[in-house]
Order: sequence, then structure tokens, then C-alpha cells
Amino acid sequence: MNNIVWHNQSVSKFDREKLQGHKASCLWFTGLSGSGKSTLANEVQKYLFELKINSYILDGDNIRHGLNNDLGFSDDERVENIRRIGEVAKLFFDAGMIVLTAFISPYRKDRESVRNKFEDGNFIEVFVDCKLETCEKRDPKGLYKKARANEIKNFTGISAPYEPPLNPELVLKNNEADDLKSNVEIAIKYLRDKKII
Amino acid sequence: MNNIVWHNQSVSKFDREKLQGHKASCLWFTGLSGSGKSTLANEVQKYLFELKINSYILDGDNIRHGLNNDLGFSDDERVENIRRIGEVAKLFFDAGMIVLTAFISPYRKDRESVRNKFEDGNFIEVFVDCKLETCEKRDPKGLYKKARANEIKNFTGISAPYEPPLNPELVLKNNEADDLKSNVEIAIKYLRDKKII
Repeated sequence: MNNIVWHNQSVSKFDREKLQGHKASCLWFTGLSGSGKSTLANEVQKYLFELKINSYILDGDNIRHGLNNDLGFSDDERVENIRRIGEVAKLFFDAGMIVLTAFISPYRKDRESVRNKFEDGNFIEVFVDCKLETCEKRDPKGLYKKARANEIKNFTGISAPYEPPLNPELVLKNNEADDLKSNVEIAIKYLRDKKII
Repeated sequence: MNNIVWHNQSVSKFDREKLQGHKASCLWFTGLSGSGKSTLANEVQKYLFELKINSYILDGDNIRHGLNNDLGFSDDERVENIRRIGEVAKLFFDAGMIVLTAFISPYRKDRESVRNKFEDGNFIEVFVDCKLETCEKRDPKGLYKKARANEIKNFTGISAPYEPPLNPELVLKNNEADDLKSNVEIAIKYLRDKKII
């Protein structure tokens, strides 16, 4: 890319954070399909909203309908999918927001690439840890059934790998016996401890 | 795209707008290179910030460094550039924000595609109307000089067309005799009249 100059915005992220009364942050939820990423992100968002904090969720579903509607599910397209989401998350972060993302994002390498766009402490990897059996039992979109029937190829957990984070900032265990509310509280406590909110 | 379900977020745009005390909106600045799109968007943003409104600017420069750093300047890539920016603007809009975009966006068709992503009234096309001679005289990045020397191909206004909006919501005349402050006031008045702020 030639002929490009970074245009400094005169309202800084620091200004925005001060106005809003909280810091910007990216909470990156990762885990199997059906592990509860969107549900958890949504509950965290509701909790933040009660605290008068406007956060935003980037979700596999809403992104796939818009920005990434030109991408399929090949290896290259999955990498590009996560790359773009990381860049958009960075824009929301620069806008001073708490942005939550809820994508399977199965590969460590892709998640690390996104992490590297952020300074230390600003990227919070949230591993939604849920057994495959539980996810498959929930199967909210009937995808596991299709994957088992070989109607969907390269399905994470069935016919494609999931690489769990090695050092996630947060682990939320989300099997049947686990409590949604407790998990939300863990996430909120983390944000408070780090003085993000 | 199969296997996709739209995931309703439980915090609605209406909730966000109520919390923030203003409506969401997309101000799409279009005009020649050097017409003053970024400068004007920046001044509007500063004014909004004084009103305690956190807005965000998507700018050709910051987008090209990140989300669209895989795109060059061919016809297809220019279309894709604007498409992605429109989708990101839509996400910021959904997040309840006033998002300002500052791109040459020379083609009516591409701008119309973005407009069509928004409901009536939510997409505000701002034509930054400035004579080519003035833009070329300013030449803040030295691009006109390079275009004249044929070092840059397909440069809008020199070797590629600019299609001015036919029915923009706002026209900001921004030649040398025009006043930056007056233009900002025109934009702010529009937002007030439409009860966006």
C-alpha cells in the first residue's frame, strides 16, 4: 500500500475512555460450536448495559451476513474471516468501546494474529470450555447432526480440529452443570480487577 | 452462506440510543482527494465530542492500513473497499454510534449500495464540494503531482472519474473562500434538525 498516510484523529482513545467512564477492551470468546460463546457474550453485554456501558458484540452470524458474506469455509477463507473480524474489533476498540467477539476461531495462529494487533492487556481471550458431547447434545442449529451425516465438511470438533488456548486470560467452564450467572460474574470481576470498568 | 442464523442481540439499538442520549447515524463524506473530507469529519467529531457524544471516523487511511490492507486500487478492489467500509459503518451504526466516513468513494453505484444497507434517514451523504483546481493546489499528500506525472494511475479527478452525488443530504462547499467553521455548523444543524442529536 503506497500513498497512504495515517490520519490522526483529534479525539483520542484516551478522550473517549474518559468521556465514557471505562476503558476500551476486546473480549475474544473462543470455543466449540454450541459451547455458549454468543449466549455468554450476550449476558456479559446485558450486565455491562445495566452498568450504563454500551458494548458491542461481533458475532459469527451477523458478520457472515454482512462484511464477510463473500467468504466461504475453506481454510484460506476461515483465516481471512478471523483476520477481518480482528481488524473490525480493533476499530471498535479504537472507538473506545468494549467489543466482544463470539467466533469458534479454532486455530491458535489466527487468534494470536488478532492478539498481536492489540497492546498487552487489551486483548482478553475468553476460552468457553465445554465438552464436545455437551455441545453436540445442545446442537442449537442442528449443525452437529449435519456434520455427523457428512452434510457439512470440515466441521470443528467433528472433522476439523479445535486448538484450545494455551494461556487464555479467562476460562469459562460451560457444561450443563455450570451456571451462566457465575460465568458472567467471573468475566465482570476480571474487567473490574483490570480496572477496565 | 448456509447454516447461518441471525443472532438477536438482547441489547437493542433503541436501548443504546436511549442510554447515549442521541440517535445512531452514518455521515458519509464523499469528494475529491484534498477536498477536505477528513478535515471536516474531524471537526464535526470534535464538535460532537464537546457535546459529550462519542462518534467515530472511518478513514481511507486507517482502513487501508488494517481491514483493507489486502486490497489495491483496481476497479474490483475499489468496489470491495467501499463495500467493506459500508458494512463496518453499518456495524458501528448498529452499535448506536454516529459513524463518519471519509473516502473519495467516486462512484454513485457504490455509494448507493451502501445507502441501501440503511433505512431511510440513517444514511447522510455529505458531498464535500471543492473544485479540482483547489484540491490540486492543496495536494496535502502530493498525490496530484504524482498523478500528473503518471506515477499514479486511475487517480480520481485526473485519470479516473468522480461522480458527484445527485441528491446528497448535505453539500459542504469547501473551496478556499469557504469557512470550515460554517461547514461544521451546517452539519451539526442538520443533525439537530433531524433530531439525531
